[in-house]
Amino acid sequence: MHAVDVIRKKRDGFELSVAEIEFMVRGAAAESLPPEQIAAWLMAVWLCGMSLHELRALTQAMRFSGEVIGPFSFGKKAVDKHSTGGVGDKTSFLVAPIAAAAGLAVPMISGRALGHTGGTLDKLESIPGYSTQLSLPEFRSVIDRTGACIMGQTQNLVPADRVLYAMRDRTATVESANLICASVMSKKLAEGLDGLVLDVKTGSGSFLREEAASLRLASLMVQIGEASGTRTIALVTGMEQPLGRAAGNWIEIAEAVALLRGEFDPLTEDLRSLSVSLAGWMIYLGGKSDTAESGREMAGHLLESGAAYRSFHAMVHAQGGNVDVIENPSDFHKPGARKDFVARHSGILTDMDCAKVGWAVQRLGAGREREDEPVDAHAGLYFHAKLGSEVKAGDPICTMFAESKDKFAEPQRLLLSAICIGNQPYQPQPLIRKIISIDNAAQFQHLK
Amino acid sequence: MHAVDVIRKKRDGFELSVAEIEFMVRGAAAESLPPEQIAAWLMAVWLCGMSLHELRALTQAMRFSGEVIGPFSFGKKAVDKHSTGGVGDKTSFLVAPIAAAAGLAVPMISGRALGHTGGTLDKLESIPGYSTQLSLPEFRSVIDRTGACIMGQTQNLVPADRVLYAMRDRTATVESANLICASVMSKKLAEGLDGLVLDVKTGSGSFLREEAASLRLASLMVQIGEASGTRTIALVTGMEQPLGRAAGNWIEIAEAVALLRGEFDPLTEDLRSLSVSLAGWMIYLGGKSDTAESGREMAGHLLESGAAYRSFHAMVHAQGGNVDVIENPSDFHKPGARKDFVARHSGILTDMDCAKVGWAVQRLGAGREREDEPVDAHAGLYFHAKLGSEVKAGDPICTMFAESKDKFAEPQRLLLSAICIGNQPYQPQPLIRKIISIDNAAQFQHLK
Repeated sequence: MHAVDVIRKKRDGFELSVAEIEFMVRGAAAESLPPEQIAAWLMAVWLCGMSLHELRALTQAMRFSGEVIGPFSFGKKAVDKHSTGGVGDKTSFLVAPIAAAAGLAVPMISGRALGHTGGTLDKLESIPGYSTQLSLPEFRSVIDRTGACIMGQTQNLVPADRVLYAMRDRTATVESANLICASVMSKKLAEGLDGLVLDVKTGSGSFLREEAASLRLASLMVQIGEASGTRTIALVTGMEQPLGRAAGNWIEIAEAVALLRGEFDPLTEDLRSLSVSLAGWMIYLGGKSDTAESGREMAGHLLESGAAYRSFHAMVHAQGGNVDVIENPSDFHKPGARKDFVARHSGILTDMDCAKVGWAVQRLGAGREREDEPVDAHAGLYFHAKLGSEVKAGDPICTMFAESKDKFAEPQRLLLSAICIGNQPYQPQPLIRKIISIDNAAQFQHLK
Repeated sequence: MHAVDVIRKKRDGFELSVAEIEFMVRGAAAESLPPEQIAAWLMAVWLCGMSLHELRALTQAMRFSGEVIGPFSFGKKAVDKHSTGGVGDKTSFLVAPIAAAAGLAVPMISGRALGHTGGTLDKLESIPGYSTQLSLPEFRSVIDRTGACIMGQTQNLVPADRVLYAMRDRTATVESANLICASVMSKKLAEGLDGLVLDVKTGSGSFLREEAASLRLASLMVQIGEASGTRTIALVTGMEQPLGRAAGNWIEIAEAVALLRGEFDPLTEDLRSLSVSLAGWMIYLGGKSDTAESGREMAGHLLESGAAYRSFHAMVHAQGGNVDVIENPSDFHKPGARKDFVARHSGILTDMDCAKVGWAVQRLGAGREREDEPVDAHAGLYFHAKLGSEVKAGDPICTMFAESKDKFAEPQRLLLSAICIGNQPYQPQPLIRKIISIDNAAQFQHLK
């Protein structure tokens, strides 16, 4: 088989065979094919699309390009949650311990900050001592002891994705529903899951701003997951503003811990409610409840009872994190500088360009520009108002945290153009826009 | 400027600016852009197309990517002919000396055998001592002395094309009218021409089998040439069978020499007639005749009078070739083995898959499979019948020449499936299908 023939076939709009797709993926993973052939193929896929058959073959070839975690490895049902990336999205720190407290295994392999979105690993690493670089045996051991473990990708898990992802970034082939689906699902399926809950973001803070694109991606991911033997559900959820109040690293952990400890705050109700819904689906797919609704009730109880907090505490401890900061979170936040971003005039927060808010968080130092850059654990934004809140001129809308004062100028400019104070009443939309299961997925598959 | 933004813009169907195209071409020529970015861009161009503005910018950026030959370098008008590649196409050995004999300069930079098509340089190198690797000063000196020089590309002429061409070959982006046009025209315009005659092949032996595709390519090349200040004309000509009788290396030189020496053969009349037409257009574009028709008459006279033969003889001598083999061509052909390919039954030669005939020539040893392979100077095919000829069972249709007898099996199989002997009368088509000038080029630009 010759790569040039496979590229030509895709370029000319034909469906590739499983063997042809495996050939390209293996060549990418082993770096035995030259980069120009991988790139030309990716661009042809971007422009000519893929059938569901091809997408399944691509996902499976990537999934099995390295080591995989077998099903039943944990002696109990394994479930996970994956989000397509948002601003202030710290649901993982709630759903993983809730599901663990429900008696499930949560082998969560997660990522770092990318562009305007935050990274789960960067947030966890703001806890002193917390290690996200474990070997697979260490990963299993943490899950055995605590029910959940959140760590980074290992060298041997889905190596094809590492190569393809870096290449997509350089060749303008990132924003393809097919390629995003294969990248996410190959990694999640390599975890050996029984059930997977996807949180597909839509709106101004998501990578796919159009709801149709989010629905299509959700449809593809659910169909690929189910075809590979993992019960899969997708919640398409709004990302018009940061989830909760905090967007950064440590301040997001602190916000999650507050909810785990039962503290109530009306401005983080969106975070609590979405986390309980996602965890409810995890509990249901993991067979611990008869319906998603009763799973949701169970998730609420596990959060309120402190069981989820104990799971989180155990996980942090097992991964080397200093639990003192979890037990006394308010003492720990030590940003170098802080400044309020205030309302210029009075009115109602009616609109937010949430991606710009994410870029402000990144520019404050919480995200990174280059892959090898460190992030500031204490930087970020903390909101005092959310969409629909009434503000008066001079009221703080949010507080900016950074290493030093000279970091505030650009984030301030970004926030000024991102946040709209109007005088019309705000029309809230439900946070969960649509639930996509294998029963309704096919109808969203051909959306553009 | 970032390559990824240029790739994204083309991918999304937008027109690139001159600066963006120059950025990509310079990055390719200097190898400062990684191969995956060039490849993704080429595939996006292949699939999304280019406007005439973009194509002109691409051609000019490639043309000026290295050294160029200035206009008026030769003290007389400079003209050239370029063919898109055929089987048995040896018109260069006739048109270059005819135009030189007409008082024009012919700075012809040519190529090697590629796939099923022969290479002008390989054919010339079958003349012992003939050197095709000259420096630009040597090139100019041969033209000063003899009027014409045919040599290979230098390292410094159009380096962008060398990089892009090799990459297109590996990424299934060869067969794009835009990319073919830019590749050919950048090299030809770098020769500093006043006039350029293009022989765009169509039919089973050409790279573009469909006439519409050939017309479109001709239209693009004529418009790009004229927009760059070179008078350009394209003849779209049939390639349903080899031109003349010989397809190989030395045997093609010998056939051209026979015509230059005034020998008449009805089976090479197609070659003579096309060469005189092409040379007639060169003479007209070079300002040596008032019309293409009178240029054609002048070309015929220069061929018959022996003036063109003397020019060819001088060029071979000036490039180090042994002129004895030109003066006594029949003594020189020494193939290791020969075998007739005979008619299985009686009838009329009604059809030929000319690309398969080209592959038979290649497999006999006259072409190459890998870039660095040597070719056999004496291998090839010599036809005793052409389309429309009546043959009897057992009559030789052509003679195969190779290094040894064991090379005949595969070419024989190819010829058997390529050549059709029927009992219907053959309906010949005119060899010159269409003449595309700047006056009618626009109407063929949007053909698919």
